[in-house]
Amino acid sequence: MAQKKDFAIGIDIGGTTTKFGIVNNHGEILAQDRIPSNEHEVVEEFIEDLYKKLMPMIEKSGGVKNFAGIGIGAPNGNIYTGTIEYAPNLKWKGIIPLADLIGKKFGLPTRLTNDANAAAMGEMMYGACKNMRHFITITLGTGVGSGIVIDGKIVVGHDGFAGELGHTIIRPGGRLHKSTGMRGSLESYASATGVRETAIEMLTTHPEEPSLLRNYSINDLTSESVYECAMQGDNIANNIFEFTGQILGESLANFIMFSSPAAIILFGGLTKAGNLLLNPTRKHMEMNLLPIFQNKVKLLFSELKEADAAILGASALVWEMD
Amino acid sequence: MAQKKDFAIGIDIGGTTTKFGIVNNHGEILAQDRIPSNEHEVVEEFIEDLYKKLMPMIEKSGGVKNFAGIGIGAPNGNIYTGTIEYAPNLKWKGIIPLADLIGKKFGLPTRLTNDANAAAMGEMMYGACKNMRHFITITLGTGVGSGIVIDGKIVVGHDGFAGELGHTIIRPGGRLHKSTGMRGSLESYASATGVRETAIEMLTTHPEEPSLLRNYSINDLTSESVYECAMQGDNIANNIFEFTGQILGESLANFIMFSSPAAIILFGGLTKAGNLLLNPTRKHMEMNLLPIFQNKVKLLFSELKEADAAILGASALVWEMD
Repeated sequence: MAQKKDFAIGIDIGGTTTKFGIVNNHGEILAQDRIPSNEHEVVEEFIEDLYKKLMPMIEKSGGVKNFAGIGIGAPNGNIYTGTIEYAPNLKWKGIIPLADLIGKKFGLPTRLTNDANAAAMGEMMYGACKNMRHFITITLGTGVGSGIVIDGKIVVGHDGFAGELGHTIIRPGGRLHKSTGMRGSLESYASATGVRETAIEMLTTHPEEPSLLRNYSINDLTSESVYECAMQGDNIANNIFEFTGQILGESLANFIMFSSPAAIILFGGLTKAGNLLLNPTRKHMEMNLLPIFQNKVKLLFSELKEADAAILGASALVWEMD
Repeated sequence: MAQKKDFAIGIDIGGTTTKFGIVNNHGEILAQDRIPSNEHEVVEEFIEDLYKKLMPMIEKSGGVKNFAGIGIGAPNGNIYTGTIEYAPNLKWKGIIPLADLIGKKFGLPTRLTNDANAAAMGEMMYGACKNMRHFITITLGTGVGSGIVIDGKIVVGHDGFAGELGHTIIRPGGRLHKSTGMRGSLESYASATGVRETAIEMLTTHPEEPSLLRNYSINDLTSESVYECAMQGDNIANNIFEFTGQILGESLANFIMFSSPAAIILFGGLTKAGNLLLNPTRKHMEMNLLPIFQNKVKLLFSELKEADAAILGASALVWEMD
């Protein structure tokens, strides 16, 4: 079926924004747009909003008859059931049969997987990992997502939920992660939210130390402002990235000793910090590896734009349908 | 070839003891014996010792002509190369081409893998995980080994070294692991060695608290003596298992959020502690999981004797040879 149709729709539902696009069967994104993920009280309103934006794009490509289907990447998305289950970052609670609901609304076959797995699939089909059979992608955005590829296949585990590396504990008893109630998870440190919290902590615990960050109001203190100050040589701002990289590097070392990937690909907003983040991450990653794993694993930034990887990866689910 | 021969040899090289046996093609161990792993300065002496013990057993089964080959499980064993590489628990340093050396000595095809992976293979072929496609085995012995099965296959990673979960860090900056120099690894707490260290720490930091463990000399303080005292209601001894279970449970939660297995199987000396270890482990495992993973993963003790699982698993490598 997929062979006869020209187009697929890829939808990436992030904690803040939902991005979607029309993709052809050469992996080119022909059109894309976005809506907020968290401004709809019920999922039906979200779908209605998505429909209003997507239908004109679909019509421009000749209507649904030219489309093979819809692929969706979503937090806590389950490829076995097509549902989103208890996603801590989304407003819709419980189990949401999103693939079914969207499939019916658009009248197209629809498949759904974890958002980070979709990004990993995009990376494997079109990005830096094209010929790799063992790699891990880590998305450093509002939260921390992960996609694990072993022997050329996305790891989904016995129930479809594998690869929640952002929720692994790296500082037992550490920082509270508000939406899960867990303490010391990777996501509570190595996300945009985590960097902001580290900034507030460091500014509070070193009240005497001057910092450009003190010119920002608490509301304006973001990972971007920390980056700008670090680039101007601000000491606290640099320490924030050093600390973030340490936590991330220690976590990556643990992941490497699990699946021994050839590469780890970093995506997402935080990667804009470039070497400010990459250097301490690499240092602490290597420091925490057994010698047999040292200086072997490539640590790379994604070559794809984050939105592209996720949309392309989600659309790839369509071409994989029977 | 394997089809025409009746027997295989399984060899399990542990940190302290090497166990080996003659296995038939129904997975029955017909004869077994053991030698120490760490009393030979060079690997050739170890092989000589092994040869002297194994050859009479081989002769009793009609000689090498009846044997399909030799399978070996060894620490830091690499299935791709047949070598042991920089094993921290063994005397022989550097890269040891053990499969080659043993194959030449016995004149039999020889294959080698990680000891913990061999145990997982034994569990998958003959034990509690017979029909499971996603599980993790953890060996709690002198050290902590692990074998990870995803989609019915042992995870070996891009270089053959995946599944070193005992060396993942669960207490950053924590207890020094002497042979690796790393701090806070799972193995430094949840092994027989780790339990002994915890005992010494707890007895030292609570000098006022009476404990049956104070009747033992430092040399006689082992995980077994801690178990015996705990069974007699000793408070410190019970706290030692509670703490060990906490560390192990937190680590297992992290592993579950990586590969989402249907079960985790615990092997090895420490499992003799039974519920003293299992209960706190299960409690802290569940506490540190995202809700989507809770109350799903079976936590079991192996049904196979540890030596049997490792010998059977190692021998299974032979039946898998071309």
